[in-house]
Amino acid sequence: MHRPGGPHRSRLPVILPELVSTAGIMAMIADTGTRPGSAADLVLSGIVTGVWCLFVAGYALQIWSAPEAPELHGVSAWRARRDYMLSASGWIDLLAALALPAGWLTGLPGRDAQLLAIVWALKYIRRTSGLTLLLRVMKRALPSLASVVTVFFVILLMAATLSYVFEREAQPGAFSSIPQALWWAIVTLSTTGYGDMVPATIAGRLLGAVVMVSGIVIFALWAGIIANAFAEELQRRHFLKTWDLVADVPFFQDLGAAAIADIVRLLHARHVHAGTVVIREGESGDSMYFIVSGEATAMLAPEPVKLKSGAFFGEMALLFGTPRSTTVVITKPSVLLVLDVADFRVLAGKRPELVNVIEAEGQRRRDANAALRRD
Amino acid sequence: MHRPGGPHRSRLPVILPELVSTAGIMAMIADTGTRPGSAADLVLSGIVTGVWCLFVAGYALQIWSAPEAPELHGVSAWRARRDYMLSASGWIDLLAALALPAGWLTGLPGRDAQLLAIVWALKYIRRTSGLTLLLRVMKRALPSLASVVTVFFVILLMAATLSYVFEREAQPGAFSSIPQALWWAIVTLSTTGYGDMVPATIAGRLLGAVVMVSGIVIFALWAGIIANAFAEELQRRHFLKTWDLVADVPFFQDLGAAAIADIVRLLHARHVHAGTVVIREGESGDSMYFIVSGEATAMLAPEPVKLKSGAFFGEMALLFGTPRSTTVVITKPSVLLVLDVADFRVLAGKRPELVNVIEAEGQRRRDANAALRRD
Amino acid sequence: MHRPGGPHRSRLPVILPELVSTAGIMAMIADTGTRPGSAADLVLSGIVTGVWCLFVAGYALQIWSAPEAPELHGVSAWRARRDYMLSASGWIDLLAALALPAGWLTGLPGRDAQLLAIVWALKYIRRTSGLTLLLRVMKRALPSLASVVTVFFVILLMAATLSYVFEREAQPGAFSSIPQALWWAIVTLSTTGYGDMVPATIAGRLLGAVVMVSGIVIFALWAGIIANAFAEELQRRHFLKTWDLVADVPFFQDLGAAAIADIVRLLHARHVHAGTVVIREGESGDSMYFIVSGEATAMLAPEPVKLKSGAFFGEMALLFGTPRSTTVVITKPSVLLVLDVADFRVLAGKRPELVNVIEAEGQRRRDANAALRRD
Amino acid sequence: MHRPGGPHRSRLPVILPELVSTAGIMAMIADTGTRPGSAADLVLSGIVTGVWCLFVAGYALQIWSAPEAPELHGVSAWRARRDYMLSASGWIDLLAALALPAGWLTGLPGRDAQLLAIVWALKYIRRTSGLTLLLRVMKRALPSLASVVTVFFVILLMAATLSYVFEREAQPGAFSSIPQALWWAIVTLSTTGYGDMVPATIAGRLLGAVVMVSGIVIFALWAGIIANAFAEELQRRHFLKTWDLVADVPFFQDLGAAAIADIVRLLHARHVHAGTVVIREGESGDSMYFIVSGEATAMLAPEPVKLKSGAFFGEMALLFGTPRSTTVVITKPSVLLVLDVADFRVLAGKRPELVNVIEAEGQRRRDANAALRRD
Repeated sequence: MHRPGGPHRSRLPVILPELVSTAGIMAMIADTGTRPGSAADLVLSGIVTGVWCLFVAGYALQIWSAPEAPELHGVSAWRARRDYMLSASGWIDLLAALALPAGWLTGLPGRDAQLLAIVWALKYIRRTSGLTLLLRVMKRALPSLASVVTVFFVILLMAATLSYVFEREAQPGAFSSIPQALWWAIVTLSTTGYGDMVPATIAGRLLGAVVMVSGIVIFALWAGIIANAFAEELQRRHFLKTWDLVADVPFFQDLGAAAIADIVRLLHARHVHAGTVVIREGESGDSMYFIVSGEATAMLAPEPVKLKSGAFFGEMALLFGTPRSTTVVITKPSVLLVLDVADFRVLAGKRPELVNVIEAEGQRRRDANAALRRD
Repeated sequence: MHRPGGPHRSRLPVILPELVSTAGIMAMIADTGTRPGSAADLVLSGIVTGVWCLFVAGYALQIWSAPEAPELHGVSAWRARRDYMLSASGWIDLLAALALPAGWLTGLPGRDAQLLAIVWALKYIRRTSGLTLLLRVMKRALPSLASVVTVFFVILLMAATLSYVFEREAQPGAFSSIPQALWWAIVTLSTTGYGDMVPATIAGRLLGAVVMVSGIVIFALWAGIIANAFAEELQRRHFLKTWDLVADVPFFQDLGAAAIADIVRLLHARHVHAGTVVIREGESGDSMYFIVSGEATAMLAPEPVKLKSGAFFGEMALLFGTPRSTTVVITKPSVLLVLDVADFRVLAGKRPELVNVIEAEGQRRRDANAALRRD
Repeated sequence: MHRPGGPHRSRLPVILPELVSTAGIMAMIADTGTRPGSAADLVLSGIVTGVWCLFVAGYALQIWSAPEAPELHGVSAWRARRDYMLSASGWIDLLAALALPAGWLTGLPGRDAQLLAIVWALKYIRRTSGLTLLLRVMKRALPSLASVVTVFFVILLMAATLSYVFEREAQPGAFSSIPQALWWAIVTLSTTGYGDMVPATIAGRLLGAVVMVSGIVIFALWAGIIANAFAEELQRRHFLKTWDLVADVPFFQDLGAAAIADIVRLLHARHVHAGTVVIREGESGDSMYFIVSGEATAMLAPEPVKLKSGAFFGEMALLFGTPRSTTVVITKPSVLLVLDVADFRVLAGKRPELVNVIEAEGQRRRDANAALRRD
Repeated sequence: MHRPGGPHRSRLPVILPELVSTAGIMAMIADTGTRPGSAADLVLSGIVTGVWCLFVAGYALQIWSAPEAPELHGVSAWRARRDYMLSASGWIDLLAALALPAGWLTGLPGRDAQLLAIVWALKYIRRTSGLTLLLRVMKRALPSLASVVTVFFVILLMAATLSYVFEREAQPGAFSSIPQALWWAIVTLSTTGYGDMVPATIAGRLLGAVVMVSGIVIFALWAGIIANAFAEELQRRHFLKTWDLVADVPFFQDLGAAAIADIVRLLHARHVHAGTVVIREGESGDSMYFIVSGEATAMLAPEPVKLKSGAFFGEMALLFGTPRSTTVVITKPSVLLVLDVADFRVLAGKRPELVNVIEAEGQRRRDANAALRRD
């Protein structure tokens, strides 16, 4: 559940760690292509070391400033620091700070110690909050995946053994043992097909054909299971996130739980910066908006009208199919709920009372506009 | 939303730009296989230049004729021209006209300047109105795709670093630096498997197996997300397009919004040329038709009957399971709504009142036919 | 719509054409590996010619016996013959009969003329009635596929042009022209990756990475669209086929169209040979059966009971969770509707009145059994 | 249908067979890489023989102890033994015991006889109960798969014949006969692309492009069909398993079948060991729990409260959005039904009466807690 301001652990600019770790990883990668001791090597190593210093300092700063993080408000300073250090974020930051020293301590030469900087890539994962999502998806898919993985391993072992039996005489170099044949089996079962080991006998080629087709079937099952689990989890997230927002809009509050559960599926949340033009006069429109929090301004002719949280706008294009009759600008950072025209019509079927309210308001605004123009 | 006549920007034959750009691209491609200065080279270069002239002339003509385009009716001539030039279509046409001069101006030799003609391929995209669709799909899938793409990059970087560590001693030529190893990682992670770089050590092969399987899992997630978003967007389009048509048919107009939302999901729109035989006497039938606009003629025995917009036909095969009792020909360009037999039965369950009307009409027509035959 | 006996065009054994064409194709394939004029060559050519004779004879016989086909009953003999010859089946049979002569007439040497025997493979397609299904699926998926195919071609052309630009200096042999580069592009975009052409420059490899990933995304879209269309079409087929059967069972006939539409989704048709043991005493059971046509016999203790079309059996295991209390054997070729235990419970929620009838009957049978055992 | 204790055939530790067979297979695989007669060979062969002895002993023990298996209670000892021997489990155990002797009897040298030990891999399949699932899925998908498989074979045969025709002159060594070309066709159709055979002519490359794209389309269909069947079968399993559990909870027993069918889709079963902490005080919570069987203890302040089967807990975090107010520990092995917060809200819409009961209880507990704290 994304809340505005939620992902900011401290006051540090939010995207800085990713930029810094990208620079560090790029330098480390490029450095492997230089001659040791050359000028390029020295510069790139310097960048890596510099980035590492930044991460050490950053980690210290994060620990120190942890009590100021908004979501840890009301917790004692030491508890806040401990919480940060034990969070996934904290562990990744610690790992990033320990990357180079770990290499030095184990006595690796400098250029090799630097390779451990690759753990800085973990900083990207933290950023997308994707780790939690992927873990939930995997947990959901696990029981079904288990049986497919088992079948995968059984086929892998059988294919390797059979290919060894079929090919060891024709190609004693390539298929010299089952561990060698296992490499062929995995390369073929995943349809990667490097071509470094290729069956030459008829039996081996028939086996190869079966392995390729099995590979595709197994990965089809695999893909189906994971994609299903992913879709379900995303739907669950959307439902929960939108529910919280819908419950904050007075317009929906009088509805029973059944109606809200229906509506939540049709709405989509959007976080909008101040200054964004959501609706532009004269354009054709295919959605209307409810303001959850923040403020929008409708640029009406005699004087602009402020729309506060709880208000809605953009309904006229949906009701009458006309172009947008006015421009609406967001004047404070806002959270909007968007209702697409297709979903509006589904809603009109399921919850006519709601749409009647919107229609009455739309008609009232239209009449008001017409009256203004007559004056 | 496809409206008849909508995609025609001007009176130019609609498919011409695609044919011309195909000829130009084919000539350009073939020209790269000729010896510079040979007869074939001169002919093919000539075709490319000719096509370019056509596109320049076409662009000028489009600007000049923009005010005549039907969907810009009522707009001032200059505004219509500006609108065309700023549309996606206008930008692609401009790019096509600038392709060769851009090459010449940057001082490329003639044969190389010609390669820029490849931008003419963009003309195909405009044609399918697919760009808008694909952009909407991508926008819908973006938040979910982001986390998978992040994981993809993290695995890619880690795989490259590890393979460099494992393989650099065994194959100092191939795995000489991480940038080199990145090429192996992407070729393996996408299961392309060229075979130009293949791990030779046991650790490298284990890593390879993990990378292949990860690749398939990541792309399974990717595929699942995109396919889901695509399906939802297509459903939305179909709903909106059919809704507009259903609302134009008097037969459906008395129904409430809830009933229409149900029906819209069951109907499919079809644009039909004059002269098309929709139903042929004696064939077995599995759908009935509602006329949104246009005209159809039922070839009945004493004299043909004209069916105007709002009428329906083909219901008897659905009601009585008999072969088509008459031939129906479209006599003016028409828009039909098609109701499949399976959906007809679903509709009979959900909206019996509608099907009763159809049944009464079907029975009336059957009796009329029988009476005619008795005479 | 499969009807019992429907696929039998005549009295010829149904599977014979497939066996014969398999033999012919195998012989033709094997013959390409023999030395011309060797004994093996002569034998295999003889088999191919023999199979061809059979197909010529078969085609003549089919034309002659067409009027006896059950689904053409009541049609004049000549009309029946014409109908057969113009059907997909007829065209494939004609093609099979013309395969070898077509080769001889165009002056191909004997061994090459034989290669045309590959068209016999089309006989398999006729058999699965899959051609119609696949055509309907493709028609359904066409509009969505079109835009993806367009994007596919645009990427293919751009990738080939760019790879030619990037690689022509580093590898003038492999990337000598855009037609050459197109081969690399398709091999990479489909992630086949033969490895015969591999980019060597940094720009070429970056392009390669983008092409591989694009390939997977495009094919993910493609797969999603086709799989969706396939699933919808299969559902439609199942609905229609089951609907016809449900309407024949008196037990369901009193229900309204809405109830039948619900039930049809839960039932699965099964064609059963005489002698099949559908239920075996003492086994645990997870489905019940309705007899659409044919006859079953319940092996009850004092004397077996015949169950005619319209009856149902197997409900006790679902109602009471007990093992099957009796064995039921099919005594005439039958069509059954199967109701799974999960779907039975869904039905109990949606249509309690139906399940009450089944429960009453189940209770009656149980009491009768108990009474018999008491005696 | 998993019941606690169900998968235990006898009192032997459950995971032992898998560990032993893993050890045996690893030794057999490693042994193929050793020099015959070397020390390593002798040790590894010894392990394989030892594992085989264990399997022989295990099979005998299983037969002997079969009557003690809980699910065969009440059956005569000989019948229980016969049932075990004829079960899938029994057959796999027999096969495992016969692996080595089968090799010796057929006169294979010792090292080759050992290769038959690969059948021990089948022990993994038994463990996941995945065999039954996969067989049911395949049975469900069979009719649709059949037509795709047919098309696959037709394309394979045609591609091989055409590539032979196109390439035999350019590459007489590689494409020397259709059986050779078949290997190219399957490697290309599955997009494996070893690169050992690559078309060189223009016609051959166009054919190659078509084959690659066909391959992806066919496997997309294949994947779609299998994934669909898998998803349906998993849903069916979940429905049946949860239904049995829901029917055991008094809280749900008063509901009609329709309500239960709704609820079953929202609940997920979880088997929990004694000692597990299901809820921890102060954490945020996103699910509530119903106890089907077993016992949980809520660690309330004055004295812990025991929750028996039929009770529910964790509802307060869902109702009031507060952190968990108490820790709940499982004190006897239990089966729980989990209700996620998203599903709870869906349930609130569909079945308000149920949620009212939960709310009343939640409010009562909250008041009780507050009263306790006031004291």
